[in-house]
Amino acid sequence: MPVGTQGSVKATLFRDVEELGAEIILGNTYHLFLRPGDELIARRGGLHRFIGWSRPILTDSGGFQVFSLAERRVIREEGADFQSHLDGARHLLTPERSVDIQARLGSDIAMVLDECLSYPATRDAAAASMQRSVRWAGRCRDRLTELRTAGEVADDKGPRRIPMIGPVPMTSPDRPAMVTNPGQAQFGIVQGGTFQDLRDESADATVAIGFDGYAIGGLSVGEPIDTMYSVVEATARRLPQHQPRYLMGAGTPEDLVECVARGIDMFDCVMPTRNARNGQLFTSEGRLNIKNARYAEDERPIDPRCACYTCRRHSRAYLRHLYMAGEMSAGALNTLHNLSFYLDTMRRIRDAIVFRTFNEFRQEFLRSVSRLPSDA
Amino acid sequence: MPVGTQGSVKATLFRDVEELGAEIILGNTYHLFLRPGDELIARRGGLHRFIGWSRPILTDSGGFQVFSLAERRVIREEGADFQSHLDGARHLLTPERSVDIQARLGSDIAMVLDECLSYPATRDAAAASMQRSVRWAGRCRDRLTELRTAGEVADDKGPRRIPMIGPVPMTSPDRPAMVTNPGQAQFGIVQGGTFQDLRDESADATVAIGFDGYAIGGLSVGEPIDTMYSVVEATARRLPQHQPRYLMGAGTPEDLVECVARGIDMFDCVMPTRNARNGQLFTSEGRLNIKNARYAEDERPIDPRCACYTCRRHSRAYLRHLYMAGEMSAGALNTLHNLSFYLDTMRRIRDAIVFRTFNEFRQEFLRSVSRLPSDA
Repeated sequence: MPVGTQGSVKATLFRDVEELGAEIILGNTYHLFLRPGDELIARRGGLHRFIGWSRPILTDSGGFQVFSLAERRVIREEGADFQSHLDGARHLLTPERSVDIQARLGSDIAMVLDECLSYPATRDAAAASMQRSVRWAGRCRDRLTELRTAGEVADDKGPRRIPMIGPVPMTSPDRPAMVTNPGQAQFGIVQGGTFQDLRDESADATVAIGFDGYAIGGLSVGEPIDTMYSVVEATARRLPQHQPRYLMGAGTPEDLVECVARGIDMFDCVMPTRNARNGQLFTSEGRLNIKNARYAEDERPIDPRCACYTCRRHSRAYLRHLYMAGEMSAGALNTLHNLSFYLDTMRRIRDAIVFRTFNEFRQEFLRSVSRLPSDA
Repeated sequence: MPVGTQGSVKATLFRDVEELGAEIILGNTYHLFLRPGDELIARRGGLHRFIGWSRPILTDSGGFQVFSLAERRVIREEGADFQSHLDGARHLLTPERSVDIQARLGSDIAMVLDECLSYPATRDAAAASMQRSVRWAGRCRDRLTELRTAGEVADDKGPRRIPMIGPVPMTSPDRPAMVTNPGQAQFGIVQGGTFQDLRDESADATVAIGFDGYAIGGLSVGEPIDTMYSVVEATARRLPQHQPRYLMGAGTPEDLVECVARGIDMFDCVMPTRNARNGQLFTSEGRLNIKNARYAEDERPIDPRCACYTCRRHSRAYLRHLYMAGEMSAGALNTLHNLSFYLDTMRRIRDAIVFRTFNEFRQEFLRSVSRLPSDA
């Protein structure tokens, strides 16, 4: 899933994201809640209509940015108290409020609010945090069930009340519940740090609550790569085989292949878009950094095996010039390429699975992307 | 002509510039000379090949940026001595060198080096400057004639020597003359400030030298709009009817219509692209500034009469959000719209001329674009 933090996949137009074959993008609840605001988006008919993207959207819970971006955060059982990084305003993000905000956004997949543990953590801290995340997951599930049976719907026919079956707790007159996508799914998140017995406990408890899909959170936060892979492998195995398994916040192209091999179906990562804006490009023969002087007169495309617009049309020499000259089109062209490489990698993985050649593909891919020394 | 300063029309991809129907873009010799360098571009086969744009390109002489951007410039009869705004390096831009640089770039239309007079200027200053520009125009024409008969050609078959008919003065072994587009045309530039008799003298002298087309320079620099229109009208009338007449650096949409009415065929201006990045949008009912809070929940497109990608897909509310959030896509989407408005205005002008309805079009256009008070 390309990351569309603030309702836009950075440095791209949605037409290009569609042409690249993205089937779903991710939106960040924290950012959209602060600006332009979930209530404004709900009045405009939900996130799809507001941003002009009709394919699926997954929204995170807002928790990760509260932990990583917001200021003076205080986590209590009720929720996360924090100050906006934009204007310092205080907000309380509870599990219920995260569900409400995502209901207003009307994403196709909403994530539960979890506590994000920093790495490294002691076993006791990881256990306490994981258990709180399980309790929050239960509250998120309850809240979504309430919303599904009561509240208002706003879609392209305008806002209207749908039958109230039960009470809608925590809804105040100034912040009415508003569901812009009645079919919204909800995924639970497995936590537990790098302690596999805690991961197992979290997976079982989360599955017991019952969600439409399951994510593995709290990885790709600084732990050794082998630790990540082994936690992914053991945890994915414990999750229902016929529901989506989503590894949050990973990773490199190699991570995609290695984690699909361990049972993961879905990924999101800012790496292809963020690195593109910094001049780091992914290719079938490893990474290259377009800033490097060696590319000043290099007429080859970024990746001779790539069919994206950037590689069909422009040389490394031109892309280096645009980057050095500070042109916005450098970010745009680099982003097109990196997203193409990531989405193409996922397509090749799917094809290899269908044609039962995944193991050969995996070996060849890993050999290929590590062929050249990175000059990043 | 959309302005492609550094080899890129800012915040766009060339695919979009093509789809919008741009038939020619402008490149800035000063910028390309400093970075990545005209010799590098020549080694890569010229500007078209280097940037991946196969339609026509016009390059300016570099003079305007030397006068407006460069530091510590000293103008003498030989040329303009200046320091790069990038690294402070000293350079001497002579008429011959401007021709040589543009020959290396291989644009389809090269401009002569002229002296750019600041406004207001005394009659004496305007006369002296205009006469120097005429002398420089003669030197530019002579230099191009020399290059056309001697030197090297670099195209997609690689650099090779073409028959030497005469000497190539001012070519040193470390900066050989290099012609990447043997069919390059050259336009003269009429100067003379706001003094019509000086304009007339400049026009006659420039036409006497003989160029492939003629530009009017030194306008749109702060003079009253009526002065600009009357100088354009009288000067255009004095230029050959069957060769292109190009008004440099103008202007607003109204300027396009008013100056076509006075005999102008070609324009370039950074206004559509620069203003777009600052949130100012041109519409069939006047300008609007997307930053304005009144657009926060406005579901209408920028211009209901516009068929561009931005207007087909996105609301003012979304575009305001992107702008306020600092997303690069704000600049990209706004630029697409403004370029579309400018290029569409020129298409409508051409259609109106063909169908002999230009006067009605002109009246309706001016009434329409001034209908709403600007909120910029």
